[in-house]
Amino acid sequence: MFESVRRGDVDVDAALERLAHLPFVDTPHARVDTHRALRQGLPEVVYGPGKTAEQIAEVVAAQRDADLDVLVTRVDPAAANAVLALRPDGEYEPQGRLLWFGRRDVPVAGKGTILVVSAGTSDAPVACEAAGVARRYGNAVEMLGDVGVAGIHRLLASSEQLRRARVLIVVAGMEGALPSVVGGMVDKPVIAVPTSVGYGASLGGVAALLGMLTSCASNVCVVNIDNGFGAAHVATLINRI
Amino acid sequence: MFESVRRGDVDVDAALERLAHLPFVDTPHARVDTHRALRQGLPEVVYGPGKTAEQIAEVVAAQRDADLDVLVTRVDPAAANAVLALRPDGEYEPQGRLLWFGRRDVPVAGKGTILVVSAGTSDAPVACEAAGVARRYGNAVEMLGDVGVAGIHRLLASSEQLRRARVLIVVAGMEGALPSVVGGMVDKPVIAVPTSVGYGASLGGVAALLGMLTSCASNVCVVNIDNGFGAAHVATLINRI
Amino acid sequence: MFESVRRGDVDVDAALERLAHLPFVDTPHARVDTHRALRQGLPEVVYGPGKTAEQIAEVVAAQRDADLDVLVTRVDPAAANAVLALRPDGEYEPQGRLLWFGRRDVPVAGKGTILVVSAGTSDAPVACEAAGVARRYGNAVEMLGDVGVAGIHRLLASSEQLRRARVLIVVAGMEGALPSVVGGMVDKPVIAVPTSVGYGASLGGVAALLGMLTSCASNVCVVNIDNGFGAAHVATLINRI
Amino acid sequence: MFESVRRGDVDVDAALERLAHLPFVDTPHARVDTHRALRQGLPEVVYGPGKTAEQIAEVVAAQRDADLDVLVTRVDPAAANAVLALRPDGEYEPQGRLLWFGRRDVPVAGKGTILVVSAGTSDAPVACEAAGVARRYGNAVEMLGDVGVAGIHRLLASSEQLRRARVLIVVAGMEGALPSVVGGMVDKPVIAVPTSVGYGASLGGVAALLGMLTSCASNVCVVNIDNGFGAAHVATLINRI
Amino acid sequence: MFESVRRGDVDVDAALERLAHLPFVDTPHARVDTHRALRQGLPEVVYGPGKTAEQIAEVVAAQRDADLDVLVTRVDPAAANAVLALRPDGEYEPQGRLLWFGRRDVPVAGKGTILVVSAGTSDAPVACEAAGVARRYGNAVEMLGDVGVAGIHRLLASSEQLRRARVLIVVAGMEGALPSVVGGMVDKPVIAVPTSVGYGASLGGVAALLGMLTSCASNVCVVNIDNGFGAAHVATLINRI
Amino acid sequence: MFESVRRGDVDVDAALERLAHLPFVDTPHARVDTHRALRQGLPEVVYGPGKTAEQIAEVVAAQRDADLDVLVTRVDPAAANAVLALRPDGEYEPQGRLLWFGRRDVPVAGKGTILVVSAGTSDAPVACEAAGVARRYGNAVEMLGDVGVAGIHRLLASSEQLRRARVLIVVAGMEGALPSVVGGMVDKPVIAVPTSVGYGASLGGVAALLGMLTSCASNVCVVNIDNGFGAAHVATLINRI
Amino acid sequence: MFESVRRGDVDVDAALERLAHLPFVDTPHARVDTHRALRQGLPEVVYGPGKTAEQIAEVVAAQRDADLDVLVTRVDPAAANAVLALRPDGEYEPQGRLLWFGRRDVPVAGKGTILVVSAGTSDAPVACEAAGVARRYGNAVEMLGDVGVAGIHRLLASSEQLRRARVLIVVAGMEGALPSVVGGMVDKPVIAVPTSVGYGASLGGVAALLGMLTSCASNVCVVNIDNGFGAAHVATLINRI
Amino acid sequence: MFESVRRGDVDVDAALERLAHLPFVDTPHARVDTHRALRQGLPEVVYGPGKTAEQIAEVVAAQRDADLDVLVTRVDPAAANAVLALRPDGEYEPQGRLLWFGRRDVPVAGKGTILVVSAGTSDAPVACEAAGVARRYGNAVEMLGDVGVAGIHRLLASSEQLRRARVLIVVAGMEGALPSVVGGMVDKPVIAVPTSVGYGASLGGVAALLGMLTSCASNVCVVNIDNGFGAAHVATLINRI
Repeated sequence: MFESVRRGDVDVDAALERLAHLPFVDTPHARVDTHRALRQGLPEVVYGPGKTAEQIAEVVAAQRDADLDVLVTRVDPAAANAVLALRPDGEYEPQGRLLWFGRRDVPVAGKGTILVVSAGTSDAPVACEAAGVARRYGNAVEMLGDVGVAGIHRLLASSEQLRRARVLIVVAGMEGALPSVVGGMVDKPVIAVPTSVGYGASLGGVAALLGMLTSCASNVCVVNIDNGFGAAHVATLINRI
Repeated sequence: MFESVRRGDVDVDAALERLAHLPFVDTPHARVDTHRALRQGLPEVVYGPGKTAEQIAEVVAAQRDADLDVLVTRVDPAAANAVLALRPDGEYEPQGRLLWFGRRDVPVAGKGTILVVSAGTSDAPVACEAAGVARRYGNAVEMLGDVGVAGIHRLLASSEQLRRARVLIVVAGMEGALPSVVGGMVDKPVIAVPTSVGYGASLGGVAALLGMLTSCASNVCVVNIDNGFGAAHVATLINRI
Repeated sequence: MFESVRRGDVDVDAALERLAHLPFVDTPHARVDTHRALRQGLPEVVYGPGKTAEQIAEVVAAQRDADLDVLVTRVDPAAANAVLALRPDGEYEPQGRLLWFGRRDVPVAGKGTILVVSAGTSDAPVACEAAGVARRYGNAVEMLGDVGVAGIHRLLASSEQLRRARVLIVVAGMEGALPSVVGGMVDKPVIAVPTSVGYGASLGGVAALLGMLTSCASNVCVVNIDNGFGAAHVATLINRI
Repeated sequence: MFESVRRGDVDVDAALERLAHLPFVDTPHARVDTHRALRQGLPEVVYGPGKTAEQIAEVVAAQRDADLDVLVTRVDPAAANAVLALRPDGEYEPQGRLLWFGRRDVPVAGKGTILVVSAGTSDAPVACEAAGVARRYGNAVEMLGDVGVAGIHRLLASSEQLRRARVLIVVAGMEGALPSVVGGMVDKPVIAVPTSVGYGASLGGVAALLGMLTSCASNVCVVNIDNGFGAAHVATLINRI
Repeated sequence: MFESVRRGDVDVDAALERLAHLPFVDTPHARVDTHRALRQGLPEVVYGPGKTAEQIAEVVAAQRDADLDVLVTRVDPAAANAVLALRPDGEYEPQGRLLWFGRRDVPVAGKGTILVVSAGTSDAPVACEAAGVARRYGNAVEMLGDVGVAGIHRLLASSEQLRRARVLIVVAGMEGALPSVVGGMVDKPVIAVPTSVGYGASLGGVAALLGMLTSCASNVCVVNIDNGFGAAHVATLINRI
Repeated sequence: MFESVRRGDVDVDAALERLAHLPFVDTPHARVDTHRALRQGLPEVVYGPGKTAEQIAEVVAAQRDADLDVLVTRVDPAAANAVLALRPDGEYEPQGRLLWFGRRDVPVAGKGTILVVSAGTSDAPVACEAAGVARRYGNAVEMLGDVGVAGIHRLLASSEQLRRARVLIVVAGMEGALPSVVGGMVDKPVIAVPTSVGYGASLGGVAALLGMLTSCASNVCVVNIDNGFGAAHVATLINRI
Repeated sequence: MFESVRRGDVDVDAALERLAHLPFVDTPHARVDTHRALRQGLPEVVYGPGKTAEQIAEVVAAQRDADLDVLVTRVDPAAANAVLALRPDGEYEPQGRLLWFGRRDVPVAGKGTILVVSAGTSDAPVACEAAGVARRYGNAVEMLGDVGVAGIHRLLASSEQLRRARVLIVVAGMEGALPSVVGGMVDKPVIAVPTSVGYGASLGGVAALLGMLTSCASNVCVVNIDNGFGAAHVATLINRI
Repeated sequence: MFESVRRGDVDVDAALERLAHLPFVDTPHARVDTHRALRQGLPEVVYGPGKTAEQIAEVVAAQRDADLDVLVTRVDPAAANAVLALRPDGEYEPQGRLLWFGRRDVPVAGKGTILVVSAGTSDAPVACEAAGVARRYGNAVEMLGDVGVAGIHRLLASSEQLRRARVLIVVAGMEGALPSVVGGMVDKPVIAVPTSVGYGASLGGVAALLGMLTSCASNVCVVNIDNGFGAAHVATLINRI
């Protein structure tokens, strides 16, 4: 742009105007996140809760018109049906509560495998969200479930699979101990996701969160409670490096 | 006593008077705990912090005069020296911060072995307090240290020792995950002791405490942060059943 | 297995394969907990909340096909009816919210009596869960209710019953003081269960939990808020020693 | 004053001026509390921590010059010596950490006895503060110590003394259960004082505080952690009614 | 009873049996609280939430059969209608959510007036619960509402009424500042009731609770959040002294 | 009034009576806030939640009869319809959940522009509440939305608009970082409003609240979570100075 | 700058370079805050804790060399002496713990008076910090101390002074109720500063902080605990508008 | 090993014995972490606090004898001097509080640059710990300090440097907003480190921690408060992929 100004192709006022609006001028009503996702070659992600089916359909339309893929997260079956009634071109994954509008097959851009490990059956929705997002973000994804630390043998039996992964997402509620054990078994980065599974002293996932933050395995980093999407985003970026 | 009243050996007023004072009439200045410990055939235990060397020596004297053993907990080396200067007949265990006045060898009254498992080297003081108290309470005690969950192989290598124990005390700070793993490996009661080891999100041991309370292993019960003494007491009672 | 390898009956690859899957090869969809329970000779326990009637019926079928007993916890009446519509061979205990599929009479394997003490009428569901689980786990169980510390005489009147028990489970909400008083009256291990009964400063059971953890009776250990099942599990293991 | 204005003895401006300064015009540098205490016929109370010996002596001088009694709270022995070096006319009670400047014998104005009950020896400083303040406030005071709930017999043996009291102050740390038990034994108001005695899950007295606030005895009300002075103040007012 | 034993009227076993059951033998299913209330000459109080209309009616029947009054607290209109359909002899006060079965006019046994002061209109239900309970407990009760500290003039205008009261109950949510101001205006005991009124940083009444506990007026004591009943109980006992 | 007394126009008793009731004598059932608002020349504001349509209509009627404007906050569409069915003279702004009864056009009394900046689309309701209240309070208001800190360019592009404002209200949930960034870009007071937007570690807005209180920009002050109304009130007072 | 580029005075690379460094190119080691302060015509403020005397002196030297004023906050007397030994040209205000290097008399730029109100004597350091900073920032400042809400008459007597102020800073610890009362008495913005004064349930100032955030006076906004400096900064900006 | 067994070189008992001890047989007194670090080709890291100079020197000797590098973290200058007096072959970095025993120049094994960004000067120790560890772990490291969000221009001026990095570690205390802003400017993984810098509502770093966990930038993951070492470990693993 400075070059254009110097050449006289663009005058100063116009340059200032463009400078102000550049990264978001074309889709004024969309979220800034879109642009960031775009720069990173990733589909747009919309957080579903608190939005009506109409609002979601509208955002999807804007993206699809621009030939962009859209992924809606945290969509329960009823909400999914409502959106699909408006836009039948979507694909719903009930386990991960994900609604996808876009290419049937996202080409794999990640260099290795992202392994999503989870502790108990109640952690499955968050694990499936992470896995589903990672797949739509162009990664090869494997899942390893039901390997809670109170039955350590099953986890150990999968140690080869753990070591093969390029990045690991470890999902656990209650005491949130699984990332520490997994972290000690691999020499790859482990992204820990606490879940709100539990009751009483689990304090809605805070116990698991604190446990993961104070993990004695130092290759563990943590995202927010139930944030399978965030874990998948970080894992994707690592997997693309 | 009712019998005595009926026989006329004791009149009603005296009976009421005795009823009121019975369990503590002889040592009016001592703690009720003494009496409870006595009833259970256990030595008296004195919590050291906040007491002067003189106060501790005085309590010890009262007990020793009655030919009872006394164990003082949470005594740092300086305090131990100060008490021992007043009463040289004590024995100090610096690792467990325990000061003992009594029989050299407490006869073993427990039926099996109490195994004290700990996660890291920083948890050793609490583990040693638990082990030291359990020994003075008349138990065969084994210790297994440095088996934190981030290096799970070492713990697994000791699975035979874990299974041999009649009761297990598991001590861990930071994320407090060790009791969950140990709990899954044995079919005995596990008494979990969170420690205040850690920083930041460990919140002075609260993270470990919450983790142990929400353990996915259901044979785990929990005592207060750093409470090695309490764990040893519960384990002793279980071991005597 | 090493022996088989040495004899040549099993080759190395097969050994590794079996080593990996051994403890859970036969029922691949079931929880690891099953195996642990099995090893301990206890029926499988399924945590009911968050599972559909179909999912529960499926787990039950798998267990019953293997001639194993199953206990489902935290089942409200509506959920119980839905499951029983699918599998009428169950038995529902509404007070303890327990659904049982298995032998009519579990043989008593515990060596003494487990006494379940509770403070107020609102604590009854948790006390009944603990008692029901303990019975299905093969224990002789007694209950003593409505003996909150604000009316201490009633508790004292039952002191003989307290002392007869081999293990005690003490259930209380609000200030959670009952385990301290009971702990001082017996020389047996006391497993304290805080309940979420209360409002305001009870903070959903946290007040009771903290009170029990800081009990001045040192023979008290604690499980999670409302965790009657966990208390029964620990008590069973103690009672079998 | 309105009368004076009407009579013309005082003009309007002067009335406004006096209205503004009336309750504190004579000792402009002193605390408002003084005046309140004065209105209630009670000696002035100064909170010691954070004040130098000089500052304390200065406040005392102002009060004594006006022939008023002063009580300084939370004074450790070193601080007491420093103040007494400046003003040797004081009387120090080390157990309650109270420093008194005033009449040797405060006439008893309370109608009955205030009984200060405490759980453990570590709670004694707060109990002594409450008792000392209550005495200086003109009450007959009795103390009953070392009656923690884990040794309930001793408390029961004193039930007559409990019932004789007109108001009860109950001091306890750790789980703070004593006020609930005492509350159930009497039909008088119980003022509960949580103490910061304890460690780990006692959270500096918060566990005891929450326990007292959620007491199942409904004749219990609560003051701040370690606030023996406040409890004595409330008890005094009740005892004077 | 000792006398009876001595005279031989009662043998030892029977004495022991009676000792065990005495304070609650006649109404085995009722709460211990009943007996306490009875001893204090107060009607029985039942906490309504979590009880069905049938359960409430049953408790009421047992009391009324023994010619005792019963007060049920925290009864919303729908629940009240359900109970009244079963027992039409009750009286419902919707503002205080109280359901009364008993004498139309409780004779006044309190010596002075209990004044219930409240801050905002949203605090009215708790204030009305306190006032309603206090009236049924036999007190003369006055109410002073809508005198929050942000409009201090109105409170000041009622200073005469404040000073006339024998005991004050002060109800406030949000910052809970009203008891401090009232406490400074009177020389009577102030029982502060924090309410759960507010949002965000009020943390369900915890902000008001902490504010009242740290009040700079030292004649203030505190009960649990929204506990109008407890405040009325304490106030009644003070008013009867 | 003193003058009247002096002249004899008003006798002393009447003066006392008037002194007591003066600021609120005319509308005895209304909130003290009304009077405060009146003194400041601002319309009355009623907090909607917890009030029935009838109660709201009644308050509105009282105000409108006195020819005063009324603004009801936190009114969801269903509640708004219910009130408007009773009083069709209102105006509903669904985005800010505001219901207005009064002049169509409030004259602008503020000296400059209040700019309401918000981070994400989910923060819009609180931002719209702030903007709507500020307009009804007689300010020129601008809004700048969707400028969360993770897309900093858009905020920078509006730096001119930021600098033009006389006062800024900055609304953000989740990590609540926006006020810090805006605060560093302007030399005007910034009123930060944390919102309850978020999940898990956002703890219902507490994360954003703490973040704003610890802002590294020292020209930031904070109001309660979701308190758009309070922010608008403070901003209005600043804008009128 | 765009103009310079267009004219060819500055080439594109240089423009980019300057664009990057412009706001801080001249004093590379200083804090960005400096520049912000500079833009607002305010002296630089350095937070003292954690800095050595040498580090403070160095920062001061850099500022004084550029002929700028510097204010160092939170400097205790010992630290002040250490700095003054290195740079005797400073002025120390012990009450507000402020160290000033600059003009003797800062010209008054604020349009009205900032009134700093504080509750108790222990709040004085924070009040003095606020007042001292406000003066150095060029404001006319008045102070009103010792007007805690438990002695409301004194505050009322100063209502004229309260109403005269253009902005009010209200400092209080413990229950933090003073800003609510003051807020109700004035129609100006009130900046509330919670202090860490108190013990037990004051939780290091959190009780006061929560109380101020939930104030029933809606013209109150809040800064961090003990943040007298921040309050003065906001007040200064308001006073300059 | 299975192969050896099959060949008969190793008998079954010996195989079991070796299986048990394999990963740690050679250095029985060292931490399991060592082995993990070894497997990952990283130097051993020892957490300094709570260890005496002698203990540290002993661990260092064991490692150096095995020709391994050792890094000791959180070593203040006094402790460093004490260790260096025992082992003068170490190198101390006071800013990062790191003590290094090993090769002068660690060969760079990371594929790109790790950029350590920090907000304020007080965050420097944690940033220097992260940078120092990352360098010793064989990474090219750059640092960018003093770019707090309240002066956003300086951060923007370094956007090129931000985008060049392969992994970013972002260190911030107080409101912890910097990772959100940086996360929005890059398409690489961001590891956020909250610091305990701040006072009052920063709650020892909890405010920053919560802020980072709820970041609106979804490429951010978090480690424990002040955990510069953990961030460097994760970043190293990412940089080696």
